[in-house]
Amino acid sequence: MRQILVIGIGTGNPEHVTIQAIRALNTVDVVFVLDKGGEKADLVALRREICERYIEDRPYRIVEAQDPERDRNPADYGVAVEDWHGARAALYEAMIARELPEDGTGAFLVWGDPSLYDSTLRIIDRIVARGRLAFDHRVIPGITSVQALAASHRIALNRIGAPVQITTGRQIAGGLSAEADTTVVMLDGDPTFAHLDPDLTIYWGAYLGSDDEITLSGRLGDVAGEIRRLRTEERARHGWIMDTYLLRRPAD
Amino acid sequence: MRQILVIGIGTGNPEHVTIQAIRALNTVDVVFVLDKGGEKADLVALRREICERYIEDRPYRIVEAQDPERDRNPADYGVAVEDWHGARAALYEAMIARELPEDGTGAFLVWGDPSLYDSTLRIIDRIVARGRLAFDHRVIPGITSVQALAASHRIALNRIGAPVQITTGRQIAGGLSAEADTTVVMLDGDPTFAHLDPDLTIYWGAYLGSDDEITLSGRLGDVAGEIRRLRTEERARHGWIMDTYLLRRPAD
Repeated sequence: MRQILVIGIGTGNPEHVTIQAIRALNTVDVVFVLDKGGEKADLVALRREICERYIEDRPYRIVEAQDPERDRNPADYGVAVEDWHGARAALYEAMIARELPEDGTGAFLVWGDPSLYDSTLRIIDRIVARGRLAFDHRVIPGITSVQALAASHRIALNRIGAPVQITTGRQIAGGLSAEADTTVVMLDGDPTFAHLDPDLTIYWGAYLGSDDEITLSGRLGDVAGEIRRLRTEERARHGWIMDTYLLRRPAD
Repeated sequence: MRQILVIGIGTGNPEHVTIQAIRALNTVDVVFVLDKGGEKADLVALRREICERYIEDRPYRIVEAQDPERDRNPADYGVAVEDWHGARAALYEAMIARELPEDGTGAFLVWGDPSLYDSTLRIIDRIVARGRLAFDHRVIPGITSVQALAASHRIALNRIGAPVQITTGRQIAGGLSAEADTTVVMLDGDPTFAHLDPDLTIYWGAYLGSDDEITLSGRLGDVAGEIRRLRTEERARHGWIMDTYLLRRPAD
């Protein structure tokens, strides 16, 4: 039976990798690398670096494929993502069937952790539901950018006993949830901050975990402009940016 | 200048430790272990095992102390936790001053990740605010029980593009947030489930990451009784239990 491992590899620091992940990597015959477009070539390179650094016990192959195109400005976001996942499931299924021997072990290396805003597990569930290809699969957790953000700022995510909301830029376009004490925002391609309370405290970080990491924190009204300026500059310099931020309401 | 490292060590699986954490451990002179009461001796033992397994480069000492008593049924939860943190800050400060040489490196090993429902960083901030002891400190992230739960169930925490609420048993005593699509509950000492919608899907796990891990999932109304029975049995067997669960609303 084919084995598929979905391995969280952390966020840009090759030392975020766990011993569990390294042990799993050393059972792998094929590492599948999906290129989501040229601008993130650095991330593909990081996956290769992790394989080279940590796989010692056996030969392995890296199989690269191009992710299907995605509609970036769809009329209906949910439907567009569903369609895209369907196309990816067909691609992944064909790739596994073609490249992985029937008793082989393949791995998908996931940026951060497979449980947070990553589609690999959903795509695997789709392949399972299609019922054409038999395999077992297992998940190995990794450090997320949320944890890397908190570690760099040396803060807890939650206030004492209080909840934490993890969400996306799209979800807070209309403002923060009225109930949220702390909100962590991921996948915000163009944070404007203008619609948010300037008295919020923000903890922001880009390229978290990597040598290029930048962090900034303060009263949102005071630092929002500087964060936007830094984002523009750094995106131009790298060709891409990945950033995350935490917003905290003023204490009562 | 003294250095203090706050190191996330994952959740019961010694292989959750990252390469970054191992590298940090190998710079440590003193590991501080706070015993929170006899019932969690297994967790103290795990910290020792991690040190023995991964610290190779240098001699180190383990310094144990007893955490101050905490009022478990306070009239005001916030005030009680504040008081307890104050007592712990005084204890930690004295322990660091007494046990760590002025150019030494000390470490606190934190279950899970220092950013999530752990007080070590708050206590360090208090010591800094007291201004009597100079030191630098740094945080190294670790795998949380939330990630271990998702990995064992092979699920994403979030629905596509949707938010995730991380909260405590105390916070959901009055029911789930009306806005929450997915709620992850930590620190629930006695989940009754009776006040929650039986059509929720629950993904539950105890002793996550360890050899004793147990997981269960299903429609809440169907599995709540079994989870409560397992909790009672396992708590009696181990003398303690740590568990976490995720609740998901029925899809629209």
